[in-house]
Amino acid sequence: MTAYDDDNIFAKILRGEIPSTRVYEDDDTLAFMDIMPRVDGHLLVIPKTPCRNVLDASPAQLEAVIRTVQKLAQASKAAFDADGVTIQQFNEAAGGQEVFHLHFHVLPRHEGVSPRAPGQMGDMDAIAAHAEKIRAAL
Amino acid sequence: MTAYDDDNIFAKILRGEIPSTRVYEDDDTLAFMDIMPRVDGHLLVIPKTPCRNVLDASPAQLEAVIRTVQKLAQASKAAFDADGVTIQQFNEAAGGQEVFHLHFHVLPRHEGVSPRAPGQMGDMDAIAAHAEKIRAAL
Repeated sequence: MTAYDDDNIFAKILRGEIPSTRVYEDDDTLAFMDIMPRVDGHLLVIPKTPCRNVLDASPAQLEAVIRTVQKLAQASKAAFDADGVTIQQFNEAAGGQEVFHLHFHVLPRHEGVSPRAPGQMGDMDAIAAHAEKIRAAL
Repeated sequence: MTAYDDDNIFAKILRGEIPSTRVYEDDDTLAFMDIMPRVDGHLLVIPKTPCRNVLDASPAQLEAVIRTVQKLAQASKAAFDADGVTIQQFNEAAGGQEVFHLHFHVLPRHEGVSPRAPGQMGDMDAIAAHAEKIRAAL
């Protein structure tokens, strides 16, 4: 297990050093919009304290994050009148992880609509509007 | 939200009415091998009590399940000398869910190896051998 890198982009988002579109936070967790959304409303949930992924997380970090994942799964489903929600969580590069701070992907899903290909930057005005819908549903 | 169906196949597995290849259980959760493994070692973690998915789970169910997911992510990574782990969790059919009892998929991953296509029945002898490797790593 590689050590936690304090300069990963989610650590910088937590410190306010780079911008993010936040939709929810509590003492232990933060939820913000993915800037490469695979569906409208695609968001990320992270702990506020350092850990690389599920493999090194503490029980308290995992429990706090999964509670916020549930809250945002419910809210994003309601916000987009979605038919379902897909949750993904990647550990290490081989597992799909690109930013090495624990995060869960939450994707509201509609019947017959496939996610967009990964790695495509989203439109920031659309993302801001989607965030506002999720905040309103919380 | 549709009601929980007591006759879903994971409920039957929990009641012992249909077989499964179990790798771990505690008071609150059960882990067993996916019979359509997308990678060697693909397993599922479920709560022992009824809930349909993350959208209707209780905090206690979510917390118990995520702790077991972590335990099996660590064990399956060790068992297969994997480079990473992918975790997936599907809610409602539009979100990818096929069995309507809360479950998390845990997939040990290797660099350069893509998961097999979904929906292909695995070889039961191979699955039994993979389960034994995971049990030994726990």
